[in-house]
Amino acid sequence: MSELTEKAGKLDAVDELAAKRAEFVLDGPEGAVYLDGNSLGALPVGVPGRVADVVARQWGELRIRSWTEEGWWTAPERIGDRIAPLVGAAAGQVVVGDSTSVNVFKALVGAVRLARETGAGRDEILVDATTFPTDGYIAGSAARMTGCTLRPVTPSEVPDALGERTAAVLLNHVDYRTGRLHDLPSLTAAVHAAGAYAVWDLCHSAGALPVGLDAHGVDLAVGCTYKYLNGGPGSPAYLYVRADLQDRFDSPLPGWNSHAEPFGMRSDYEPAEGAVRGRVGTPDILSMLALEAALEVWDGVTVEAVRAKSLALTDFFLECVGEYVPEGRVECLTPLPHAERGSQVALRCSPTLGSARAGGAPTAGPVMRRLIERGVVGDFRHPDVLRFGFTPLYVGFADVERAARALAEELSEATAERSHRV
Amino acid sequence: MSELTEKAGKLDAVDELAAKRAEFVLDGPEGAVYLDGNSLGALPVGVPGRVADVVARQWGELRIRSWTEEGWWTAPERIGDRIAPLVGAAAGQVVVGDSTSVNVFKALVGAVRLARETGAGRDEILVDATTFPTDGYIAGSAARMTGCTLRPVTPSEVPDALGERTAAVLLNHVDYRTGRLHDLPSLTAAVHAAGAYAVWDLCHSAGALPVGLDAHGVDLAVGCTYKYLNGGPGSPAYLYVRADLQDRFDSPLPGWNSHAEPFGMRSDYEPAEGAVRGRVGTPDILSMLALEAALEVWDGVTVEAVRAKSLALTDFFLECVGEYVPEGRVECLTPLPHAERGSQVALRCSPTLGSARAGGAPTAGPVMRRLIERGVVGDFRHPDVLRFGFTPLYVGFADVERAARALAEELSEATAERSHRV
Repeated sequence: MSELTEKAGKLDAVDELAAKRAEFVLDGPEGAVYLDGNSLGALPVGVPGRVADVVARQWGELRIRSWTEEGWWTAPERIGDRIAPLVGAAAGQVVVGDSTSVNVFKALVGAVRLARETGAGRDEILVDATTFPTDGYIAGSAARMTGCTLRPVTPSEVPDALGERTAAVLLNHVDYRTGRLHDLPSLTAAVHAAGAYAVWDLCHSAGALPVGLDAHGVDLAVGCTYKYLNGGPGSPAYLYVRADLQDRFDSPLPGWNSHAEPFGMRSDYEPAEGAVRGRVGTPDILSMLALEAALEVWDGVTVEAVRAKSLALTDFFLECVGEYVPEGRVECLTPLPHAERGSQVALRCSPTLGSARAGGAPTAGPVMRRLIERGVVGDFRHPDVLRFGFTPLYVGFADVERAARALAEELSEATAERSHRV
Repeated sequence: MSELTEKAGKLDAVDELAAKRAEFVLDGPEGAVYLDGNSLGALPVGVPGRVADVVARQWGELRIRSWTEEGWWTAPERIGDRIAPLVGAAAGQVVVGDSTSVNVFKALVGAVRLARETGAGRDEILVDATTFPTDGYIAGSAARMTGCTLRPVTPSEVPDALGERTAAVLLNHVDYRTGRLHDLPSLTAAVHAAGAYAVWDLCHSAGALPVGLDAHGVDLAVGCTYKYLNGGPGSPAYLYVRADLQDRFDSPLPGWNSHAEPFGMRSDYEPAEGAVRGRVGTPDILSMLALEAALEVWDGVTVEAVRAKSLALTDFFLECVGEYVPEGRVECLTPLPHAERGSQVALRCSPTLGSARAGGAPTAGPVMRRLIERGVVGDFRHPDVLRFGFTPLYVGFADVERAARALAEELSEATAERSHRV
């Protein structure tokens, strides 16, 4: 037993979240080391039974009665309130529904309209230039449809880019590619100091680390629920609108579900009070109630405990990689300081980093394919990034050691193969 | 056995769609007469097993591999192609995803942008003044965000309202309240003659009667899938963009799923070709694949056969109501000519219609509640409408006779009670 295997065993033995692993399905043909929860969270064991009940009994037997009797109609705000504590929000500010992209549109247009109530000259939207692309595309549409210009800047450039023209700023809490954690409190404060509104995308932070939306005065936020919240493939996203902004939130998608009296069938639009105002059309019940069941794994768990374990996992992964992988074969894109690290580790693995002996390292794509074949599942991001996500609720330290060892073996084998061929 | 019971038996005996009933779950506490499929379609028997597989195996075991191996990624356009023949569209023009409201926004903004390519002065959107409210609310937002004015007109007023300023017209194929079928071919032709674009909402027609999108040159269309398509509560909606308009379709919600190269993670937006351009965010897989399973009930069924049975059902219902319900107790809001009738019958039931002896008739709300208690499920639309939907795939003629008889009894009992009290 190597020193690191031993250390993994000790860390697992004192892991206060270790028991949570049993609440997830982690077997199957892919093996047990699942480091892609930052793409699609694993299946919580309570979900299949709940979904079966929703389909067979609620839909199949009760049918329309379930809109009231089974709480279908109020699911978007009820499930929003279940997510709220995970992102540091008091109840009544989060509503679930639609995709992240659609919610980015609502939030950003809403933010621009808020900014213009007091400053008609505000005609610029700043967007994280390193964002997951959909945020940039949607921000482009929001800018176009509100008569703004869109200016992509890196998060570190935001403070200098802010000014009297800035209406809204769309930022990612954690970068999807590098795993860098951005400084939400100080960036939000800078946006506010400029008289603009801050919209945060929490896709890669919610459920992995404390967000503190209320504490830091964030204006609007969006996030998906299929990564660290384990809601299932393409499960509904959510929208946060700070309580004191809700009566001024002017949604660009004022569907009937956001009406003050949705069953009044009135031709004039009167927006509902509260988080409900962020709703649009009829909620997607199957996916939404699957998500609700998935959120039960959070019972008795604090985000602080999750964060502590997340950092311990990524620290240990970096330690193992440093020990097992030959020098120069990978470069860590994820910042080492805890204050700048999300819950994933991104390793760049490119031919330019190969040792001279290796005759050029293999690209990241084939390496990840082989890792997956041997049961260590991360993912590949074009062109040369290996991404490993660490979900504290179900990933253990032995998993981490095994993943780093497999990675080192793959990189060595690849090197040997190529040397042989050359 | 009454004459109408006998007739129902004969009609059921020659019903070529009768066998389809076995493909739906129709038991449960509500009894077997389900006339609310125009609100929420009944559960097809194949859905629970499919959903269980999607959850337990595709998500639980294969996880991210299912995006490719189980066809998750291409589900929106694949399922769109399954819906296409039901609305008279060739393949490659329908894409599934988001809610109806969100698709109305895409379609209407897209239509205005198309209109402006050739006519910059087009700054008016016409909307059905009798529409289900969400279409009006969303049309208001589309108008506001494209610098148009919104003008509500009844469908019959559309030809006169069209002009050089008209950019787009949003119409319902079947009115949600009255069940009136509007003349899609002639209204579309009138819109085109004015140089504008026609957007049709098919929520209350798709799956119940022929739509003929391609044949009638409709520009864009949207619809839900949880009524006559039986996709489940809040199942994803769809968007149709006519093939020859697709390369000019300029979506206001250009999410990453609509990108020509979604995994290229490019910061510049380049729209995909074809129906895919109507996608936005990550598809909601659980709901989407439940819908796909639900659509299998259409195997071997023609929309023409469905339409023929639908008209026979509503004709027979009107005959039974005429026979059983005392004169003057209800007023039929649904047009009697087949060319103007959808697949529902709306009966107004108001105190003003009560006979003098009755001391005022009961309101529609309590009548529908009691009908539901005795196992005849329709729905109530504020303030005085009883709505009965007829889904030809699972409603039979005996159901129809039973429903009309129950309605007559409820109205008579209510009358007797009130007389007694007075």
